[in-house]
Amino acid sequence: MSKSVQSKSKTLESTFTRSAWRRSLHEIIFEADTPGGKIFDVLLLVAIVLSVLVVILDSVQMIHIEHKHLLWTAEWIFTILFSIEYLLRLICVRKPLRYAVSFFGVVDLLAIVPTYLSLLVTGTQSMMVVRALRLLRIFRVFKLARLLSEATSLRQAIRLSLSKIAVFIVTVLITVVIIAAAMYLIEGSKNDGLRNIPTAIYWAIVTITTLGYGDIVPLTVLGKALTALLVILGYSLIIVPTGILSAELTQKKAKTITTQHCPDCSQEGHDSDATHCKFCGGKL
Amino acid sequence: MSKSVQSKSKTLESTFTRSAWRRSLHEIIFEADTPGGKIFDVLLLVAIVLSVLVVILDSVQMIHIEHKHLLWTAEWIFTILFSIEYLLRLICVRKPLRYAVSFFGVVDLLAIVPTYLSLLVTGTQSMMVVRALRLLRIFRVFKLARLLSEATSLRQAIRLSLSKIAVFIVTVLITVVIIAAAMYLIEGSKNDGLRNIPTAIYWAIVTITTLGYGDIVPLTVLGKALTALLVILGYSLIIVPTGILSAELTQKKAKTITTQHCPDCSQEGHDSDATHCKFCGGKL
Amino acid sequence: MSKSVQSKSKTLESTFTRSAWRRSLHEIIFEADTPGGKIFDVLLLVAIVLSVLVVILDSVQMIHIEHKHLLWTAEWIFTILFSIEYLLRLICVRKPLRYAVSFFGVVDLLAIVPTYLSLLVTGTQSMMVVRALRLLRIFRVFKLARLLSEATSLRQAIRLSLSKIAVFIVTVLITVVIIAAAMYLIEGSKNDGLRNIPTAIYWAIVTITTLGYGDIVPLTVLGKALTALLVILGYSLIIVPTGILSAELTQKKAKTITTQHCPDCSQEGHDSDATHCKFCGGKL
Amino acid sequence: MSKSVQSKSKTLESTFTRSAWRRSLHEIIFEADTPGGKIFDVLLLVAIVLSVLVVILDSVQMIHIEHKHLLWTAEWIFTILFSIEYLLRLICVRKPLRYAVSFFGVVDLLAIVPTYLSLLVTGTQSMMVVRALRLLRIFRVFKLARLLSEATSLRQAIRLSLSKIAVFIVTVLITVVIIAAAMYLIEGSKNDGLRNIPTAIYWAIVTITTLGYGDIVPLTVLGKALTALLVILGYSLIIVPTGILSAELTQKKAKTITTQHCPDCSQEGHDSDATHCKFCGGKL
Repeated sequence: MSKSVQSKSKTLESTFTRSAWRRSLHEIIFEADTPGGKIFDVLLLVAIVLSVLVVILDSVQMIHIEHKHLLWTAEWIFTILFSIEYLLRLICVRKPLRYAVSFFGVVDLLAIVPTYLSLLVTGTQSMMVVRALRLLRIFRVFKLARLLSEATSLRQAIRLSLSKIAVFIVTVLITVVIIAAAMYLIEGSKNDGLRNIPTAIYWAIVTITTLGYGDIVPLTVLGKALTALLVILGYSLIIVPTGILSAELTQKKAKTITTQHCPDCSQEGHDSDATHCKFCGGKL
Repeated sequence: MSKSVQSKSKTLESTFTRSAWRRSLHEIIFEADTPGGKIFDVLLLVAIVLSVLVVILDSVQMIHIEHKHLLWTAEWIFTILFSIEYLLRLICVRKPLRYAVSFFGVVDLLAIVPTYLSLLVTGTQSMMVVRALRLLRIFRVFKLARLLSEATSLRQAIRLSLSKIAVFIVTVLITVVIIAAAMYLIEGSKNDGLRNIPTAIYWAIVTITTLGYGDIVPLTVLGKALTALLVILGYSLIIVPTGILSAELTQKKAKTITTQHCPDCSQEGHDSDATHCKFCGGKL
Repeated sequence: MSKSVQSKSKTLESTFTRSAWRRSLHEIIFEADTPGGKIFDVLLLVAIVLSVLVVILDSVQMIHIEHKHLLWTAEWIFTILFSIEYLLRLICVRKPLRYAVSFFGVVDLLAIVPTYLSLLVTGTQSMMVVRALRLLRIFRVFKLARLLSEATSLRQAIRLSLSKIAVFIVTVLITVVIIAAAMYLIEGSKNDGLRNIPTAIYWAIVTITTLGYGDIVPLTVLGKALTALLVILGYSLIIVPTGILSAELTQKKAKTITTQHCPDCSQEGHDSDATHCKFCGGKL
Repeated sequence: MSKSVQSKSKTLESTFTRSAWRRSLHEIIFEADTPGGKIFDVLLLVAIVLSVLVVILDSVQMIHIEHKHLLWTAEWIFTILFSIEYLLRLICVRKPLRYAVSFFGVVDLLAIVPTYLSLLVTGTQSMMVVRALRLLRIFRVFKLARLLSEATSLRQAIRLSLSKIAVFIVTVLITVVIIAAAMYLIEGSKNDGLRNIPTAIYWAIVTITTLGYGDIVPLTVLGKALTALLVILGYSLIIVPTGILSAELTQKKAKTITTQHCPDCSQEGHDSDATHCKFCGGKL
C-alpha cells in the first residue's frame, strides 16, 4: 500500500494525465478490493477454467469430430474475450511495456496468440500446450487474494529448509546415477529395459520414488537385491525432508510469540495480539 | 447439554405430551450415556457390519449361486430390523420431518429402500452401492462416542491448514494439467494410453501420486524425462502438506489455550499460564 | 528391579531351594547385565539369524537339491541347540509352566517343534513358516537391551495418537468399501479384475496405498476418474496420521522440561537436569 | 580452525620446509575461502559432471557408435586433468600417504584408474560403474562449503533418532521375512514369482514400500488379503520414522543450546536465555 503511494508520488505528472476511467479500470482489473474487482476476478477464473476445458475436450478425437464447430466457436469467444482483456490491461497500466514483458504479461499474451496463429499456419495441435498454459493465469487471480500471503510464508519456510534439502537431494541424485550405472552393468546385456545408463537412470528414479510402473523390472537375483536396497533408500527421500520442513514450519509458528518484555514485571512470552502483560496486567 | 435444555424449554408444551416411553426410547436410540444406549449402539454396529458383509459376499458369483437363499433371508432380516429402527427413530424424535431430511435420516432411509425396491423392480444390482452406503451409519454410532471430539480437534487443525494446503493443491492440479497436455503432445501419436488429454491427466495423477499402475508408461526419451520430473514433483505433494499439518497440530498442542473468558472484557484466547487478561489487563 | 525383589520375598521358600547354579544360569540366559549374559545374547542372535537363513536357502529348489545334506545337518544342529536352550530355560526359571505358556515360551517351543515333527510326518514344507517364526525370538534378545525403553516411549506416543488415528482409519476403511462397491458397479461386467466386491476391495487398498501393482486397472472413463479420486484421498492417509504422530512426539519431547519453579525468583522453564535456576542462579 | 592451528604447531618443522607455492596450492585445491579456491571448486564440479555425462552418453549404443572418437577424446582429456589434479594433491598435502588411503583419496584415484586400465585390458565396460563413482567427488566440493554444517546438524538429528528407528526397522525386516515365508507357503506352488523365499522377500519389500512393480502379484484370495495387510503395515513404515525425526528436529531447533561453557564448572548445554549456569549457579 505504502509502496504504491510512493510510486504514485514519483510519477505525479503521469497520474494527472491519467483519466479517471483508466484509474477505475485499473482497480477493477488489477485489484480485488472493490466489488467490481472481485466480480471481475471470479468471471476471469471461470473463463480461464472453461477455456482450458475446451482445450481438454478438443483433444478427445470423438468429441473433436462430433462437436468440432461448437468447440471452435467457444475457442474464438474466449480468445476474443482474453484479447479485449489484454488490450484493457495494456491501456490502464501506467507502464505498458513493463507489463508486456513481465511474467504474467507474457502468459496473458500466450493465452491468445495460438488461436490467431491457427489462421496463418495449419497444424496448430502443437499449440495445445501453449493454450493449456492459460491455467497459469489462475495464479494471477489468486495473487490478489489473501492466499498469497499464505503461500509466501510457506515459500519462506521452504527457502529456509532449502539448503538442507539441497544437500539431501544432491546425495540422492548421485546415488541414483551410481546405482543406475551398477544396474546397467548387472542387467544391461540381459534386460531390454536397462540397455543403457539413461534408461537405467529413468528406472532408478521410478524405483526410488516408489512409483514402480513395472515397465522395467530387475530380472537377476543381484538386480533384485539392488532394487530392494534402492527402494528402502527411497523411503528416506520422504522421511528426511518431511522432518526438516516440519521442524522449520513448527519453529516459524512458535516464533510468532513476540520477544516483547513487560515494562512493569519484565516478563517475556507475550502473544503478538496481547496489549497487556499476561502476568501482571501492566500495559505493553 | 445447555443447548438441549434451551430447546426443551422452547418446546415445553410438546414435552409434556411426549409419553415417558418415548423419552426413554430416545435415550436408548440416540444417546450413549445409559447402559441401554450403549448396548443398542453395539448391536447396531454389529448389524451394520454384518449387513454389509452380506452385500459383499453376495457379489461373489460362486457364493451368490450356492447360498442364494441364505443371503436373501439375511438381507431381509437386516432390512426389517433397520425398518423397525427407522420407524422407532421417527416416533421418538420431537421433529420427525427434520430428522427425515437430515444427513443421517437420509442414510437411514437409504439403508432399507433398496431391498423393498427389489420387490418392484428387477435388476437391483445397481442398488448394491446404495446398500454399501449403510457403512456410513457407522459414523452415527461413533458420533455418540468420545471419538467425535478427537475428530473435531483434528478437523480444526485441518481447517486451519486448509488455505495453505489449498494454494498448494491448486498449484499441483495446474501442473498436472499442463504436464498432461505436454505429454499428449510428445507421445499422443505414438502412445495408445496418451491419445487424448483426459487420459493424459489420468496418467499424470497416477504418476504424481506414485501410484504407478504401469498401464500407461512413457515410451520416448523426452516422455521418460518428463515422467521423472513429474514424480519428483509428486514427492513434494506429500512433504509440504505433511509439514504444514505437523506444524499446525504441534502448535495447537503447545498452546492448549484455555477456554477461560475475561470477567472484565469477555475476551477469549488466554494462555493457560496467564493470570491477567492480555487485552484489558483485568484479573482472570 | 523392586518388583523382582517383591516376588522374591513372596516365594522365599522356593528361593532357598534353588541351587546357586540355577540362579547364575538364569542370569546368563534371561538377563544381559553380566558379561556371560551378553555373550549368550550375541550367540543366540547369531544362531537365530543363521537358522532362519537355512530355512530361506532351503526354499530355493536348486540349493535344496544340491546341498540337501548340508542344510539338513545345519537344521538339526540348530534344533538341538535350541532344544537344550529351551530345557535350560525351563530348569532355571522359577515357574516353568508360566514360562511355557508365555508368548516367548510358545515362540521358543515353536522354534524346535517343526524339525522333530518332520521325523513323524512327511510334507513338512508347511512347517517352514513356523520355522521362520524363530525370527520373533530376536525380540527377546533386544528386550533385555536398552532399546526396549526407546520402543516403549514410542509405543506410548502411538497409543496417545491411537484414538485420533482410529477415527481416521475407520473413515478410510468405510471409504474403501463404498468406493469398491461403486467400482464393482461401474466396471464389474467389463473388467475381469473387478468381477466381485472382495476383489474390488483388494483393488481399492492397492490403489489407496499407492502400491499400484497394475494387475487390476480401471478401463472406463468413470472408473479412471474414481481411481484418481481414490488415490488423491489415499494421500491424506499418509499426511494426516504423520502430522498427528509428529505433533504427539514433539509434545512429549517438549514436556521433558520440568514445571519446577525457582524458590528465589519463581521463574519456570528449567531443564530436568538443572540443579540451579538459570535466571538467578539460586538452588532448585 | 583451532584444530588446524594445533596440528600446525605439532608439525612445525615440516611447515618450514614446505615451500610457499605448495602452501598456496593447498589453499586453492583443498580450501574454498580464497577466490582461487572457489574458482577451482567450480571448475572441478563442472569437470566431474561433464566426465560422468560422457560415461552416461557412452552407454547409449547409438551414441557410442556415432560419436565414438569424440567421447574417447573427452574421456582422455578428463582423465589427464584428474590425473594432474591427483598428483598436485599428493604434492601439496603434508602427509601424501595418509591422503592416498583416505576415503576421498581412494575416490580420486578410482576416477582415473579405469581409463588407464583400458589401455592394458579390453572389455572395460565393467569399469563404467567405477567411472560413475567420480560423482562421489562432488561431495568433496560441497564439503568445503557452508552446506556441510547443515548436513552435520541433520546427521546429528538422524543419529539421535537412530536407536528408535533401528527398533522399528528390525521389526519391519522380521515382519517382511515372516510374511514372505507365509506367502511362499500360500502361493509358492501356484505363483511363478513366489517359488522360493528369497523371491518372496523381494516381493514383500516391493509391496511394503508401496513400490508395486506388478511383476509379482498375489493370485489367491488369501494371498491378496495378506498383501492388503502388508501394504497397510508398510504405511507405518513411513509414518512412524517421519514422526520421530520431525520431533527430534523440532526439538533441536527449539533448544538451540549455546556452546557456552560455564566459567566456574566448565559444564556445557545451557539454554540461550540462561544468565547463570544451571549446574553450579555461577554467572555465565
